[in-house]
Amino acid sequence: MDERIWTAALVVIGDEILSGRTQDRNIAQLATWLNAQGIRLAEVRVVPDVQAAIVEAVNTLRARNDYLFTTGGIGPTHDDITVDAIAAALGVPVVIHPQARAVLDDYYQTRGGLTDARLRMARVPEGADLIPNRMSGAPGIRVGNEVFILAGVPHIAAQMLDALTGQLEGGRPLVSRTIGGWVAESEIADLLGRTERAHEGVSIGSYPFFREGRVGANFVVRATDPAVVDACVADLMAALAAAGYEVVDGGI
Amino acid sequence: MDERIWTAALVVIGDEILSGRTQDRNIAQLATWLNAQGIRLAEVRVVPDVQAAIVEAVNTLRARNDYLFTTGGIGPTHDDITVDAIAAALGVPVVIHPQARAVLDDYYQTRGGLTDARLRMARVPEGADLIPNRMSGAPGIRVGNEVFILAGVPHIAAQMLDALTGQLEGGRPLVSRTIGGWVAESEIADLLGRTERAHEGVSIGSYPFFREGRVGANFVVRATDPAVVDACVADLMAALAAAGYEVVDGGI
Repeated sequence: MDERIWTAALVVIGDEILSGRTQDRNIAQLATWLNAQGIRLAEVRVVPDVQAAIVEAVNTLRARNDYLFTTGGIGPTHDDITVDAIAAALGVPVVIHPQARAVLDDYYQTRGGLTDARLRMARVPEGADLIPNRMSGAPGIRVGNEVFILAGVPHIAAQMLDALTGQLEGGRPLVSRTIGGWVAESEIADLLGRTERAHEGVSIGSYPFFREGRVGANFVVRATDPAVVDACVADLMAALAAAGYEVVDGGI
Repeated sequence: MDERIWTAALVVIGDEILSGRTQDRNIAQLATWLNAQGIRLAEVRVVPDVQAAIVEAVNTLRARNDYLFTTGGIGPTHDDITVDAIAAALGVPVVIHPQARAVLDDYYQTRGGLTDARLRMARVPEGADLIPNRMSGAPGIRVGNEVFILAGVPHIAAQMLDALTGQLEGGRPLVSRTIGGWVAESEIADLLGRTERAHEGVSIGSYPFFREGRVGANFVVRATDPAVVDACVADLMAALAAAGYEVVDGGI
């Protein structure tokens, strides 16, 4: 079955990730969320807080993916340049979004009022809409159905994804099943490759580990068609059993 | 003072990162290690297990950085295509490295012998050297002083970095100091921007948080010259104190 595959790319904007100060959590979070929408995370770039770097990444990646997400750089301080960079990438001016202004006005009414710095968080590329955020005043931003600008703080980004759930067109989600065993992946490398080739549309990932003094591996079988995944898993388990390995459905 | 800044880029190779199955730990680990070598991690790309994607990322990033690192895809299974992709990017054939073969021979002597699949782990781009790895049989690979191919499993990648410590030419490491306070970053955004502009070569990162029911932020002052960092931190602390904020040297 030939079907449309929807893809997304992510640009992680942040000196704090490139300096090692902050461990990124948004790649895994976005990947998991996208998969539930039937969209694949196809590529990720981590770029510094430098406009030219952001513009290059955004324009390259949006040209070859259905959706482009960014995380980071939408706060009120001087190092928050995401909105300006994306407006530059899209070739539109930055404007104050009236609804974002109203949201911030409301939020800061009991928190010292809406200052110029705080008003920065109402700036959007012209033509953009807001992505609601219950956690704090600053909303996320979407430009049409293509560019989605999220916060860098993972639990705030999660809220924004929550608000987007079900709104993006996707295809069939990838389905995966995992099996695992106390087996060195190098012993069964050929068997894995043969099994993958025998099932069209399937990918088998092999993830070795070392635990309790023993080597083992989990094998993740992925495809869009659950029946294809099941058939491949059944073959793989039978082949491993025939080769004398004990394997556990669900992974270990 | 005008000095050479050494930069590195990282290509994270792995469907497991893009699917959300595995949380990447190598970006932060490499960033921290590089900084200690006086090298800045300038950009990162996460690409799927697809040769064309790896080749594009490797060739773009090595052209504009001093060093190029990859993590992932150097095991014995069919989804481990890093060596082939990098050889293709460099325009050289893949060969069996005699020393890698000897290492694996030795390692697998008591573990069932060196099979064809295991011998895959001795394949390197022609002209490459090995990066020792005490954790398992498979070594990392370096191509001259430019390309460094590391394992995807973070603690094995850490061993390989350990083996490289002190071997790469770098400049002065970035020095950073952190101060923090129970202050909404939006209240002091102007002050931060002004302070950064007043100290050449300094960047101030602002990292807000919400903790114990209160908002706060840490401010990280970075530069290569420790004296410049100290001067900027002193100014920033004085300005924050004058504005009525209590700040803690070292961050909160």
